[in-house]
Amino acid sequence: MAGTDHRIAQVAEDNTGPVVVLVAPQLGENIGFAARAMLNFGLSRLRLVAPRDGWPNERAIAAASGADQVIERAEIFEDTAAAIADLDFVLALSARGRDMVKDVFTPRAAAAEQKKIEQSGARCGWLFGPERTGLSNDDISRASALVTVACNPGYASLNLAQAVLLMGYEYYQAEAAPEPYFHKTNDGRLASMQEFDLMIQHLETELEKGGFLRPPEKAPDMMRNIRNLFHKARLTDQEVRSLRGIIKCLVHFRKP
Amino acid sequence: MAGTDHRIAQVAEDNTGPVVVLVAPQLGENIGFAARAMLNFGLSRLRLVAPRDGWPNERAIAAASGADQVIERAEIFEDTAAAIADLDFVLALSARGRDMVKDVFTPRAAAAEQKKIEQSGARCGWLFGPERTGLSNDDISRASALVTVACNPGYASLNLAQAVLLMGYEYYQAEAAPEPYFHKTNDGRLASMQEFDLMIQHLETELEKGGFLRPPEKAPDMMRNIRNLFHKARLTDQEVRSLRGIIKCLVHFRKP
Repeated sequence: MAGTDHRIAQVAEDNTGPVVVLVAPQLGENIGFAARAMLNFGLSRLRLVAPRDGWPNERAIAAASGADQVIERAEIFEDTAAAIADLDFVLALSARGRDMVKDVFTPRAAAAEQKKIEQSGARCGWLFGPERTGLSNDDISRASALVTVACNPGYASLNLAQAVLLMGYEYYQAEAAPEPYFHKTNDGRLASMQEFDLMIQHLETELEKGGFLRPPEKAPDMMRNIRNLFHKARLTDQEVRSLRGIIKCLVHFRKP
Repeated sequence: MAGTDHRIAQVAEDNTGPVVVLVAPQLGENIGFAARAMLNFGLSRLRLVAPRDGWPNERAIAAASGADQVIERAEIFEDTAAAIADLDFVLALSARGRDMVKDVFTPRAAAAEQKKIEQSGARCGWLFGPERTGLSNDDISRASALVTVACNPGYASLNLAQAVLLMGYEYYQAEAAPEPYFHKTNDGRLASMQEFDLMIQHLETELEKGGFLRPPEKAPDMMRNIRNLFHKARLTDQEVRSLRGIIKCLVHFRKP
């Protein structure tokens, strides 16, 4: 990705980006995996509300391999209200709809919405519930809006770190370049039409000699198909040269 | 999610959707987690190429909790070529750009592209490399296109199951494409990977006879470039036959 992403590497000391709040997380491993998922997408501000096994947690540190700075900087709070007190817009992740009148976003729509809101200087955060039960209705009611991930209703159990990953992913992509598609991995240039044409003419000459273009009335059609085939490849200049080398090689020992 | 998703629950017996191919996976846990990520987004067709610790793998089954049907139905192959032989369009996941001329998609653009291609009846698959090294250049050259996930360049290590999760997520979110991929006037189908492979082997044999693949230490790289060149064209079965005819024609009169 380094090759296609020109943003400066984001480090754990960064103080921008949404705050990730894990409410009453149960397993240290999940806290560690969540920290990794955060750092994968340039996030570093982790807050924990009453982690079940206390803090610091050796298993969290072990699971965070490489993202341990995120763990080391984690802030601990006694309750959800305190953990989000300084934030302005909070999204609560929920696997299921709740009987509440509240906006429900997809992760993608949430990321887009949040980007807009952040432009006004608002401080944002995401709220994730305990592994077994998810967020309580009380905690949900503290959030500005809900986020749910559309997935297989027959197997909807995303784990904690996966939910963090998907939110981080969408937030990062929302920031990314407007183009959804990068070009090639090296910097060859497209062959000119003339280079392309000369290669096709070369091939045609040899195919004619070899008796491929028969019956003669079908030859123009056959050559059009061959042109189309190679046009689809969007050949570079280097590839056109390779193809000419290949043609030369293949016919080299042909009898006159 | 049940509240917002009206699709019928997808189960592991389903035979639709892309095939997930894990090449030489090292840890059973990761195979299990990948199976869960697949089923989260309704995918159930898992193929393993030479898993390091053999098969079946108790750790994979344990980690797959709830998605063990995916594990049980997994198919085992000796090499990548065999695992993708019956597929028509294969995306290779790569964390870094490669020095190859090959299309590179984001997961989102890849999902959109694949939906289009599937409308023509093409069978699709995704190729993931071993945890430590990722896919070899040889395996990459067998794929129709690359996919890379834009993420924090300072901490880009997505694990295997997370990569599977993000691909599954984007594929599930993508709407069915409104337009079919083939705007062509004929109704050709994409050539299968096996048909493609036989054509490349045919060409390679003739290029070897003709002395094109020299010096010998450069031959593998040259053949990878040739594979990439033809993959870009997304050849139909008819076009593969034409190319074989062209090769035959060109070498027909070659001296023995």
